[in-house]
Amino acid sequence: MSDTMTDLHFPSAGTAKEPFVIGVAGGSGSGKTTVTLRVVSTVGAAGAAVLNQDNYYRDQSDIPFDARLGTNYDHPAAFDWELLLAHLDALTSGVPIEMPTYDFTQHTRAARTQTVLPAPVVVLEGFFALYDARLRDRMHLKVFVDADADVRFIRRFLRDTSERGRTPDSVIQQYLDYVRPMHLQFVEPTKRYADVIIPHGGMNEPALDMLTARIRATLPGTA
Amino acid sequence: MSDTMTDLHFPSAGTAKEPFVIGVAGGSGSGKTTVTLRVVSTVGAAGAAVLNQDNYYRDQSDIPFDARLGTNYDHPAAFDWELLLAHLDALTSGVPIEMPTYDFTQHTRAARTQTVLPAPVVVLEGFFALYDARLRDRMHLKVFVDADADVRFIRRFLRDTSERGRTPDSVIQQYLDYVRPMHLQFVEPTKRYADVIIPHGGMNEPALDMLTARIRATLPGTA
Amino acid sequence: MSDTMTDLHFPSAGTAKEPFVIGVAGGSGSGKTTVTLRVVSTVGAAGAAVLNQDNYYRDQSDIPFDARLGTNYDHPAAFDWELLLAHLDALTSGVPIEMPTYDFTQHTRAARTQTVLPAPVVVLEGFFALYDARLRDRMHLKVFVDADADVRFIRRFLRDTSERGRTPDSVIQQYLDYVRPMHLQFVEPTKRYADVIIPHGGMNEPALDMLTARIRATLPGTA
Amino acid sequence: MSDTMTDLHFPSAGTAKEPFVIGVAGGSGSGKTTVTLRVVSTVGAAGAAVLNQDNYYRDQSDIPFDARLGTNYDHPAAFDWELLLAHLDALTSGVPIEMPTYDFTQHTRAARTQTVLPAPVVVLEGFFALYDARLRDRMHLKVFVDADADVRFIRRFLRDTSERGRTPDSVIQQYLDYVRPMHLQFVEPTKRYADVIIPHGGMNEPALDMLTARIRATLPGTA
Repeated sequence: MSDTMTDLHFPSAGTAKEPFVIGVAGGSGSGKTTVTLRVVSTVGAAGAAVLNQDNYYRDQSDIPFDARLGTNYDHPAAFDWELLLAHLDALTSGVPIEMPTYDFTQHTRAARTQTVLPAPVVVLEGFFALYDARLRDRMHLKVFVDADADVRFIRRFLRDTSERGRTPDSVIQQYLDYVRPMHLQFVEPTKRYADVIIPHGGMNEPALDMLTARIRATLPGTA
Repeated sequence: MSDTMTDLHFPSAGTAKEPFVIGVAGGSGSGKTTVTLRVVSTVGAAGAAVLNQDNYYRDQSDIPFDARLGTNYDHPAAFDWELLLAHLDALTSGVPIEMPTYDFTQHTRAARTQTVLPAPVVVLEGFFALYDARLRDRMHLKVFVDADADVRFIRRFLRDTSERGRTPDSVIQQYLDYVRPMHLQFVEPTKRYADVIIPHGGMNEPALDMLTARIRATLPGTA
Repeated sequence: MSDTMTDLHFPSAGTAKEPFVIGVAGGSGSGKTTVTLRVVSTVGAAGAAVLNQDNYYRDQSDIPFDARLGTNYDHPAAFDWELLLAHLDALTSGVPIEMPTYDFTQHTRAARTQTVLPAPVVVLEGFFALYDARLRDRMHLKVFVDADADVRFIRRFLRDTSERGRTPDSVIQQYLDYVRPMHLQFVEPTKRYADVIIPHGGMNEPALDMLTARIRATLPGTA
Repeated sequence: MSDTMTDLHFPSAGTAKEPFVIGVAGGSGSGKTTVTLRVVSTVGAAGAAVLNQDNYYRDQSDIPFDARLGTNYDHPAAFDWELLLAHLDALTSGVPIEMPTYDFTQHTRAARTQTVLPAPVVVLEGFFALYDARLRDRMHLKVFVDADADVRFIRRFLRDTSERGRTPDSVIQQYLDYVRPMHLQFVEPTKRYADVIIPHGGMNEPALDMLTARIRATLPGTA
């Protein structure tokens, strides 16, 4: 949508171009976020609606706090897929959504939501972005950001020990007990659904240039 | 630009954009050719200079015919890398080249050559397109067209038995004796150099759209 | 040992060694059968009880014939896992079983069964041998016979066209439509459960020697 | 060879059983050493001659100390392959060898050597154990101990930070700059030469049992 549009000029949603929906999947530490940020900087904040899957963990307010402590955040069952699907459909229909946020200290959905407006480009980012067939069917471009397992672990290790103040041992333990087995079982197999595989994660300028060019080509006035 | 050019002959030389060099690698049957043809159809025949590596097998006219019969066309040593490099450099400097052709019945270079004019996009296609570091250094985008080994074999089998009239047994034998071991040793490892991996070969419209958009973005008048 | 045995009938029951249970998995054309035959020839026909998973397709006699034609024999749901599990447990308890046979022309279980006697070595062979966790838990050695996808396809192709009189096209079509997708989804991931991976299928003498030696070491009188 | 042998009793090398030569390859942190130790404990210290490839780094005493600091210990060129080959041939011919030792503080071979006597089992262990074709040709069993890259890195990290007192940053830097690229280029491709792949490194009892049984079967008096 051009930034001059008003209800007067675009009375009918039916004539608007359908948004270009991109899925950005990849393991922890693969560089997904860098790729998503590049998409956003290409079209501007108003040009892209970003659904970060981390915001779509299930509401667990009806479960006792102690029971919530066992949540396996690396398993697909931890996500509210129906809500994510409904929100994606709303955005592609031109309807704003209230994206939930998640409170990891309380292990349940937070009260605060974040308004996301429809935009010409919709990005669904998360390690399970290509997991659900219904979401995949709605995507125009399915990207898998790839990096070798050792490199992904090292990135995660550096981030968690420096930025999040965790000890090396706790990072390693969580990785071996949860992140790694879930990745192998649920994330890695979705690589087969990708239209394009971007190796070397977010450091890969030529691939990011391709993605940028593809997105620009979808914008009104460029075709 | 070559150092013998002058403003008189090439008035706009100084303002001309350097060509965008793309390498398209991948195994036999991966869909490389489909990808290259899409690049050409994007920019038009005049917009792309295509160097097909199959034309750069070594001249073997100084070797007795019988000795030539043992040529292993799936090994990197079969190629005239220096000529390929010189031709790529000529094209990126704005100088036309005479691309050799190869006579597989005589197992040596043919007399006929094919003039290739400089163009805004230069494509180097072949299973070893990403093998030589000097060629890689000259590329702006390194593409590896990927497909699983069984699918690649089946494509090759169907092509060789139907279009080339070969028997199933001879196709299988050549594949197991030459194509496969050379692929594993020399082609597969170059995947690591790719900026982008295109799975499902040439049937992959979303990836081809990315490539097309990227190339359009390089053309004069679009930036 | 079953709880109905007594010292009178099986005087040495208490001292009998539990059978050594081996799972032999791998894709179509990987060389599983060669591996299993080697196990049998090591211990003699009386020394090994072989459960071939192909005999454990579900009985479909209660389904109309036309409906049976759609059976996907490459999907785990086609198997009668409960019966296979019960038979394995019977054999490891010293109880003979009646192994079913399957009639592929009628697409259901055949009337004929085959008596399998308990033996010091029990082999469960099939592409899904490592698929079910309950079966895996009962195995003392989990073997995955591995071969690259192109090699496996070629073996299957040669077998099906020469021994079974099928046309190249029908073999290719079935492979691409059923065998390959099911392999990728269900067989390949079970490689992670293997204790040992035998590459190059059944042509691999040093690996077969290891397996043979391991089995001999389990036999009574050798420890 | 039994430990009572003398020249009098075994006048002719021709009648002695040739040693069983095992290559044990695998990346840093894969569990190679555990596998080798199991072989040794199976046959006893006198039963196995172990050639650890780390002892066969090139003598660099003729190179100035400063120049030695740049030694890339993860590259095949750092090894004295001729000496390793000569020593293997000596051992298989019944001749003791003086295995060199290496001084990593001086970056050259140390003065001290270690006598290795011929034995019924010869193990060549190291990440490049399957790299040289001449060594491979002399092996009766080629083992590749495998583990995923993230797991291998974590093992190395824990070992180097706890046992060797190195900082996390220096371990990570060395891994990314040297260990990892050399592994991908030189070690990983040798997996294709393995007769058997042992996943999950040294924690894999069923695979170690196979190896143990195979070795026992080679010993005199067991056939």
